[in-house]
Amino acid sequence: MTIKIGLFGLGTVGSGLLTLLAEQNNKIKASTGLDFTVKTALVSTLTKDRPGLDPAIQLTTDPNDILNDPEIDLVVEVAGGTGSAKGWIKSALSSKKPVITANKDLIATAGQELIELANKAQVPLLYEAAVAGGIPIITTLQNYYRTDTIRSLAGIVNGTTNYMLTQMAQNGLSYEKALKQAQELGFAEADPTNDVAGYDAAYKAIILARLVFGLESTLDELAITGIQEITDDDIAAVKVLGGQLKLLFTINQVGEDSIALSVSPQVILPDSPLSQVHNENNAIVVNSDNLGQTMYYGPGAGARPTAQAVLADILLAATATKESHQVFSSENMRLAEPNVQAYCWILNSKTHESIESAVHELDDELNGYIVRQGSHENSNNGSQLVLYTKEITTANHDRLLKELTQKRTLNKEFVIYPC
Amino acid sequence: MTIKIGLFGLGTVGSGLLTLLAEQNNKIKASTGLDFTVKTALVSTLTKDRPGLDPAIQLTTDPNDILNDPEIDLVVEVAGGTGSAKGWIKSALSSKKPVITANKDLIATAGQELIELANKAQVPLLYEAAVAGGIPIITTLQNYYRTDTIRSLAGIVNGTTNYMLTQMAQNGLSYEKALKQAQELGFAEADPTNDVAGYDAAYKAIILARLVFGLESTLDELAITGIQEITDDDIAAVKVLGGQLKLLFTINQVGEDSIALSVSPQVILPDSPLSQVHNENNAIVVNSDNLGQTMYYGPGAGARPTAQAVLADILLAATATKESHQVFSSENMRLAEPNVQAYCWILNSKTHESIESAVHELDDELNGYIVRQGSHENSNNGSQLVLYTKEITTANHDRLLKELTQKRTLNKEFVIYPC
Repeated sequence: MTIKIGLFGLGTVGSGLLTLLAEQNNKIKASTGLDFTVKTALVSTLTKDRPGLDPAIQLTTDPNDILNDPEIDLVVEVAGGTGSAKGWIKSALSSKKPVITANKDLIATAGQELIELANKAQVPLLYEAAVAGGIPIITTLQNYYRTDTIRSLAGIVNGTTNYMLTQMAQNGLSYEKALKQAQELGFAEADPTNDVAGYDAAYKAIILARLVFGLESTLDELAITGIQEITDDDIAAVKVLGGQLKLLFTINQVGEDSIALSVSPQVILPDSPLSQVHNENNAIVVNSDNLGQTMYYGPGAGARPTAQAVLADILLAATATKESHQVFSSENMRLAEPNVQAYCWILNSKTHESIESAVHELDDELNGYIVRQGSHENSNNGSQLVLYTKEITTANHDRLLKELTQKRTLNKEFVIYPC
Repeated sequence: MTIKIGLFGLGTVGSGLLTLLAEQNNKIKASTGLDFTVKTALVSTLTKDRPGLDPAIQLTTDPNDILNDPEIDLVVEVAGGTGSAKGWIKSALSSKKPVITANKDLIATAGQELIELANKAQVPLLYEAAVAGGIPIITTLQNYYRTDTIRSLAGIVNGTTNYMLTQMAQNGLSYEKALKQAQELGFAEADPTNDVAGYDAAYKAIILARLVFGLESTLDELAITGIQEITDDDIAAVKVLGGQLKLLFTINQVGEDSIALSVSPQVILPDSPLSQVHNENNAIVVNSDNLGQTMYYGPGAGARPTAQAVLADILLAATATKESHQVFSSENMRLAEPNVQAYCWILNSKTHESIESAVHELDDELNGYIVRQGSHENSNNGSQLVLYTKEITTANHDRLLKELTQKRTLNKEFVIYPC
């Protein structure tokens, strides 16, 4: 049986999909009896030279050539953006065509509307490629965890920033140099804001929080910190006790109907399963009642892993029943503050003497709150004191901080990371 | 719609399944409309006291009360063993009842026969719980990787030995003490041979190699080394360069139609994603064309994770189509030797002087083969020299070893691990 695909977008991922289809089609045919072929592809311009493109694929600039073609069984959207793409997907779902999309921004911002439409039409809307394409996290959450109860998720889902932070920590690169290298390798775009400011990771977290907890949230509701303010000294300081800075998303159930969701640089300690997630790799940790801690690790960037996620979804859509979005909790959740959190405090001092006196001044206030500490010479011949707190409430943390920053020696020389 | 289950075995996993069903049934009912209930359970004795057991569950010692009951929709086998269980499963499949089993030994030794029977009967035979129950590796391989080409798998799939090796390395426990502790925690059985000799890990590797490469293999065809010979000094020595000893299975495609499969203690270096897999946890690394390296991590022991794998399979069987075993390559593979391998050599010497001279004697032969080295004082006031080789062929390794062991200073004081 031949399955004809209408493809919106023939950029990096779209072209990658054609490569993978050519490589895998015989095997897929042998094991499933299905023969996948791209009939029509929407492109922005017909005049561009596309060496190696199968001439049997019809190129068009008119979306209706896909949407109104009754021969097309299935629609793949890898054009991106939240404008036209939304209309194409709605139109395809309305005409009962299954849709596979890699469009993270669209699923994050309009996913609920599209999922409802898909469920109403009883056709699959699959988006594995939208979150950590190299990791089958969406399918695994939908299938394996529907008999379990998830309490929290956390992880590294932005390959660009993880690459930069790894290069800064392991090879001593400056922020600028690390960014330039990421751009040269194709991990970062010319305008890197989406990645370095944490928006890309936040979109992925929004998608996961909806899938697992039924939480609807928007970018401006969330606490998002990027990696732009991280200094070389911060990176050196957290190394003192074996830690690393990583841009992490965290989604925690903090009450019967409350979810805390954040994106920020956090300290990963050496005994964390996330401590070996380097460079452009991604990983997601899931905590659940039946399994405890599980982790899924894979590549976080690249056309091939993303195209693989799209292709796996294509096969799933063609072989699966009408199964679509799965919300785990029986009622939808609301957004909440985290309840308790451990922190890594970095105290910078110009001389070794003042850091020593700071330690002494701190002793009384911090008694009982600090679980590990170390000190370290920073790049300006000054000292850094690194303190790890217990898990404390935000209120308690604010109170301690207020007391501490009133002391002269600590003024303006205080860096804080959750950990 | 009510789905009635016939349960073979009411031990740890069977009881765990009843607990999970009680906890999750409302949620499953809400999201799928399916109401799962255990109608009949086969037990070895009816007189045993079973506090808390739902009185609605019929207990029996006659398997025909399950197999011949037309009301039973689905059979779960968690009794274990390769004797009676095989007959029950064959009988259930023949009467078109889907079967879910946690029986690793049976699937490893008779899986192909049972899978063929299931495919012929067009009913699912699912066995997620048989390999690393806390990790959805079977389902993920069957679904996500059928559009990819896997080249190798490796990992830690025996929680008992990983717990023991972690305790020996991190807390300085002796082998005997670590084993005793594992037994007290319920990770190891009274007779720990299956775990410590590597047979349990080998059975799991056999199952994975069949699933991914269509390789049929038996325990006596494989190179299996357990952890019984590992000494405290070995563990201390590999620590010199940050390494750890773990019991690993490896499955490598080494030619068009050849697969190398082994189980042995190997050195895991600090930059490996497996380096943070401690205590009873498991992890499986997959290398494939589209994704590169991916890893799946989760708990490797315990009734709850195993019962979760069984329950997830139950839901899959009840909602899925007749989909069953998926072989990835178009033709079945044969067993092969590994082609190249890196090694960690530990040279023990009674005095510091002799180890130094050994290094000098080694220089000529090893020139170009050694990539890292370090030395270390062992527990008997002697010295250990630790060398890591490049990836070399078995033949080359044998030749080098032969030359080296002819030297007086190295005689009988040589420990080798793949890494």
